[in-house]
Amino acid sequence: MNNMKTRKAKLDIKSGRVNLTHGAGGRAMNDLIEVIFKNAFDNDFLAQGNDQSAFDVGEGRMVMSTDGYVITPMFFPGGDIGSLAVHGTVNDVALSGAKPLYLSAGFIIEEGFPLADLKRIVDSMGAASRAAGVPIITGDTKVVNKGMADGVFITTAGVGVVPKGLELSGDKARVGDKIIVSGTLGDHGVAVMSKRENLSFEVEIESDSAALHTLIADMVAGHGAALRCMRDPTRGGLAATLNELAEQSNVGMCIREADVPLKPQVVAACELLGLDPLNVANEGKLIAIIAPEAADDLVALMRAHPLGQDAAVIGEVVADERNFVRMKTAFGGERMVDWLSGEQLPRIC
Amino acid sequence: MNNMKTRKAKLDIKSGRVNLTHGAGGRAMNDLIEVIFKNAFDNDFLAQGNDQSAFDVGEGRMVMSTDGYVITPMFFPGGDIGSLAVHGTVNDVALSGAKPLYLSAGFIIEEGFPLADLKRIVDSMGAASRAAGVPIITGDTKVVNKGMADGVFITTAGVGVVPKGLELSGDKARVGDKIIVSGTLGDHGVAVMSKRENLSFEVEIESDSAALHTLIADMVAGHGAALRCMRDPTRGGLAATLNELAEQSNVGMCIREADVPLKPQVVAACELLGLDPLNVANEGKLIAIIAPEAADDLVALMRAHPLGQDAAVIGEVVADERNFVRMKTAFGGERMVDWLSGEQLPRIC
Repeated sequence: MNNMKTRKAKLDIKSGRVNLTHGAGGRAMNDLIEVIFKNAFDNDFLAQGNDQSAFDVGEGRMVMSTDGYVITPMFFPGGDIGSLAVHGTVNDVALSGAKPLYLSAGFIIEEGFPLADLKRIVDSMGAASRAAGVPIITGDTKVVNKGMADGVFITTAGVGVVPKGLELSGDKARVGDKIIVSGTLGDHGVAVMSKRENLSFEVEIESDSAALHTLIADMVAGHGAALRCMRDPTRGGLAATLNELAEQSNVGMCIREADVPLKPQVVAACELLGLDPLNVANEGKLIAIIAPEAADDLVALMRAHPLGQDAAVIGEVVADERNFVRMKTAFGGERMVDWLSGEQLPRIC
Repeated sequence: MNNMKTRKAKLDIKSGRVNLTHGAGGRAMNDLIEVIFKNAFDNDFLAQGNDQSAFDVGEGRMVMSTDGYVITPMFFPGGDIGSLAVHGTVNDVALSGAKPLYLSAGFIIEEGFPLADLKRIVDSMGAASRAAGVPIITGDTKVVNKGMADGVFITTAGVGVVPKGLELSGDKARVGDKIIVSGTLGDHGVAVMSKRENLSFEVEIESDSAALHTLIADMVAGHGAALRCMRDPTRGGLAATLNELAEQSNVGMCIREADVPLKPQVVAACELLGLDPLNVANEGKLIAIIAPEAADDLVALMRAHPLGQDAAVIGEVVADERNFVRMKTAFGGERMVDWLSGEQLPRIC
């Protein structure tokens, strides 16, 4: 909306707080959108001020994905709820092999939330979106009474376009396929839990929150024909992702503990926090299932990308009607890698 | 996900409640998705169980829109938060002149929320989506601790395809254009407020919540070339929408009170509740700005559609550098129609 020309927006960013008028559809909401959102997201789509944005597409196959973000604390080492809301949805779109094109963003804000924090989150979101080259082209803000939400919840949706002929899906894993992870596991969950528990370590653990679409584009360009599917091991971690894929493809999975990349400080923190790194959320890692003959080449290609430097083959798809995921332990034994059964880490993303 | 074949989901719909495990990425979350969401939304996209869904598109122009829904109470005369979350986003997509194609849905659920109520909401969403012919192809659920949200918040995003050559935008209103509304104003807001305040009237007031895309398709087919823009007067009502458009197009607006369609029971309820019907939210109405020569024909065409039976020309676009919206009152006077200044109706949508 271009009403800035006629009236100066009144918003005390430094010490002001969100109130119910900021969600009421009137001038105050317009001010909030102008000063905080449009400046941060800064693109011609939003500048038009319509309730939707239009874009041109070529003939082809598109994907759509959405995720809600309710993480607490909202600011954590390596990121915040804003950058996470961009990275997470960019990744969900890209993991289909698609090039992410556009995002939408819906905010649910608790009355009383500091405008300065909101600006920090939204600025971070804008920066993450620009860095990824995926603009936020449409959005919505709602304000609920104090006590009816917890700070800010963000829901982003994304669309992208899939290269012709590429159809990755979780039901395509076949016996003999290799399981690849793009890097160390557990960094995000441990960073957030450490912050929440006020733990500090000699080496600070940062969230791995990152947009993986350029890594994925390299993988698809190099070995698209051999790729079966990709997933990001977020909530529930590697364990949940592999169990999901095993059930979807009606196979089993067998991984080797010694080959799973883990940072020593994450291992140490997990012991302290009583967490299993295989259940801990990641926000900048992916799992790929690929035909065996292409696996080593794919890993080499991934390692050439900054976000895939620690990529590794960690196991294989095996025949198993019960769809079990098993792990050969470092001590030569074997254990089940199950879904986590309770709630280990609420509001981790 | 197709894990139903191997294990029976455990979910006590009748008396169970949502708990944190339902958002943890493990089996319980899978059960919730299988039993409540996939059954209700029932389409092949979701059945694939991936984190995103793919669809084919032809070359052209697409639109994307999003809205969050935080309405209280969640069940109200004429609808609920689920049907509203479908109708509202279908409308935002369609108001660009687009044919809505697909929706995404993100749920933020408070721990302890009754599963039966969740099922009722999600079933209603599925029914609204099927009735509109716009499937929900991807989604996400998050659960937050008790007291950290209020029941259920839903954020939907939608995509659609715009007919070639059609570019409606809020900055296209020109002096002399006619302002049309598709029907009676204020029904949604008054229905929700009456429910909230436990008021009952001789004639029950129902929300007008509806998907307007078939009405809009008729309007575009008949008079697309003459249409400048369309908007739905939701939060902030007709007053906010006209003020927004006036500023976007740098014009003024002049409407006639006698021509604004209002149900007598809504007028009475507004008096009782101290509301101005022009500020009250609608969820199944649209405002169209159109070149003057086509206005009467457009109204006639709209009246032939069940959702446009009370369509009327209510005023004109006028020259005004201050972008004022004015109304000629029924008593022959004139008054300003301003944005609402405070928060009249929190959580109305």
